[in-house]
Amino acid sequence: MSQAWSAKIIGTGSYVPENVLTNKDLEKLMDTTDEWIQTKYGIKERRVAGEEDQISTLSIEAAKRALTDANVAAEEIDLIILASINSDVKAPATACFVQAELGAKNAIAFDMNVGGCPNSAFALFTAIKYIDPYRFKNVLVICTEIYTKFIDWKYRNTACFLADGSGAAVLTLCEKEQGILGYDLGVEGTMAKSAWWPTGGTLGTVSENVEMDGPAVWEFGHSIVPQSIKKVLNQSGTAAKEVDFYIFHQANINIIRNIMEMFDVPLTKTHINNDRFGNTGGASSMIALDEARKLGLIKKGDKMLFCAYGSGLAWGTILFQM
Amino acid sequence: MSQAWSAKIIGTGSYVPENVLTNKDLEKLMDTTDEWIQTKYGIKERRVAGEEDQISTLSIEAAKRALTDANVAAEEIDLIILASINSDVKAPATACFVQAELGAKNAIAFDMNVGGCPNSAFALFTAIKYIDPYRFKNVLVICTEIYTKFIDWKYRNTACFLADGSGAAVLTLCEKEQGILGYDLGVEGTMAKSAWWPTGGTLGTVSENVEMDGPAVWEFGHSIVPQSIKKVLNQSGTAAKEVDFYIFHQANINIIRNIMEMFDVPLTKTHINNDRFGNTGGASSMIALDEARKLGLIKKGDKMLFCAYGSGLAWGTILFQM
Repeated sequence: MSQAWSAKIIGTGSYVPENVLTNKDLEKLMDTTDEWIQTKYGIKERRVAGEEDQISTLSIEAAKRALTDANVAAEEIDLIILASINSDVKAPATACFVQAELGAKNAIAFDMNVGGCPNSAFALFTAIKYIDPYRFKNVLVICTEIYTKFIDWKYRNTACFLADGSGAAVLTLCEKEQGILGYDLGVEGTMAKSAWWPTGGTLGTVSENVEMDGPAVWEFGHSIVPQSIKKVLNQSGTAAKEVDFYIFHQANINIIRNIMEMFDVPLTKTHINNDRFGNTGGASSMIALDEARKLGLIKKGDKMLFCAYGSGLAWGTILFQM
Repeated sequence: MSQAWSAKIIGTGSYVPENVLTNKDLEKLMDTTDEWIQTKYGIKERRVAGEEDQISTLSIEAAKRALTDANVAAEEIDLIILASINSDVKAPATACFVQAELGAKNAIAFDMNVGGCPNSAFALFTAIKYIDPYRFKNVLVICTEIYTKFIDWKYRNTACFLADGSGAAVLTLCEKEQGILGYDLGVEGTMAKSAWWPTGGTLGTVSENVEMDGPAVWEFGHSIVPQSIKKVLNQSGTAAKEVDFYIFHQANINIIRNIMEMFDVPLTKTHINNDRFGNTGGASSMIALDEARKLGLIKKGDKMLFCAYGSGLAWGTILFQM
């Protein structure tokens, strides 16, 4: 960001549905075991949307908490970005319903999507690009997913890790020196079918299973993702140990551990919550960010590296000055 | 745009499916007449996607034409924004498939949506916000809709004006003085259900009919939309007659005529194509822009006012220096 101003996160919030589904519950629904899921992903339980839960309702709850945390009134929000692979309905964007319900009458609003899990990095970055001293001083970013309404529990390779939830953040204009220290985003569309969900579109195919090429995604998580982090560290002249805290997409505890080990950073410098929430797509890293802030693990002035990746294939790393 | 640089449109392209459906054909499918449709909307015929047409395939064709027109190679594109209420599949974003097919290997990519018809203004504006002298010099914006795969022709109030197509534009970094002269975007989420499509989402409702509150949308087109244009003219100190050309969303020829009359500008200063293509959502204004440029109606250096509005309810007006 080499313009005259920058952006910073001043509030976060999150919300997950009340219904808890444990690995033991899953053993009854599919051919799996609690031990297999915990070893492979680190997940113990996850939240599952009830019939009344929508992309909008989860988003509104997370957004309200973020606004309260930021001490910003809904009327002060200039833009709402809602990132999800889903929506309440085809049109208008769910962000429009959220705008109305929050009373954010001065905000424009739109939905965006790159592919679920990386959505948080792309939505935060789009907020950063929008923020200016004129029309867009405060931006509300919300990442929400409801997978479980559309998946069939019999596909254990994906159904045992996908879950529902929402995370939000308020970003605001700040001095150039206080904001974004570096970023890297990328898309490798030639690998789009390595993690895709061929359903719900003009293609006309119907699938209750998110199709994953496990080895390809594992390799991606251990090559392109750490390269992206390295790029951002180099860009900002920051050593890995100088980063105060790391927030990752919560797909798999093993990938997070391996990346932290590659950079020789102790696990105490990241926050893992997929044991309780599973993989909630773009919401996952946003919920982790909210929890880490509320637990006091990320403090004002800290350097916080945010990294999300997945379907697209796409990845995004942003180094924030908090 | 009061930063040190700006953005301008340097190429456009469009593509519509080959299948033509005339009002006479529609008379056989629903209770309507050619005369009623022409009087009410100005539409004579429209294009309808075949089974093989997808959001991606239409987008790719329009994008290729825009790249050729701009004389920009796919590798030079830094960001692809695909705006649609639809997608090929739930994940990843259709923009990722387009990125791969174009060979735009240096581009990040995402889908966005505010509500169909206003998508063009929102996508163009997001491109403008992204453009910078560092990572995002060239941005490809594509607006594509395929309505007809999901609608039932028996609902004549909407089925007789919705159609399929794609329009694209390449925007590039330019000197501050050459680019955007003014803008106004807005969302009125409290009116979200005045033009909505309650289908295909977590809400679980299924509808083959885009539900429109005709009088509310008509009133919106005659109040908030002209107010938005006035705001942009005032903002940039431009009289309506000093604008060289106007591009509007092609929903309804009567709304376009009335707005042009309100500003006392002759109809020769706008381009209407909904007689041939109907209402293709966000694609509609982009196809009109492409045709007007290719017909020589918009020339380099011209002041071009772009205005799109609809489901959200949302609207966007941008005054470009071409």
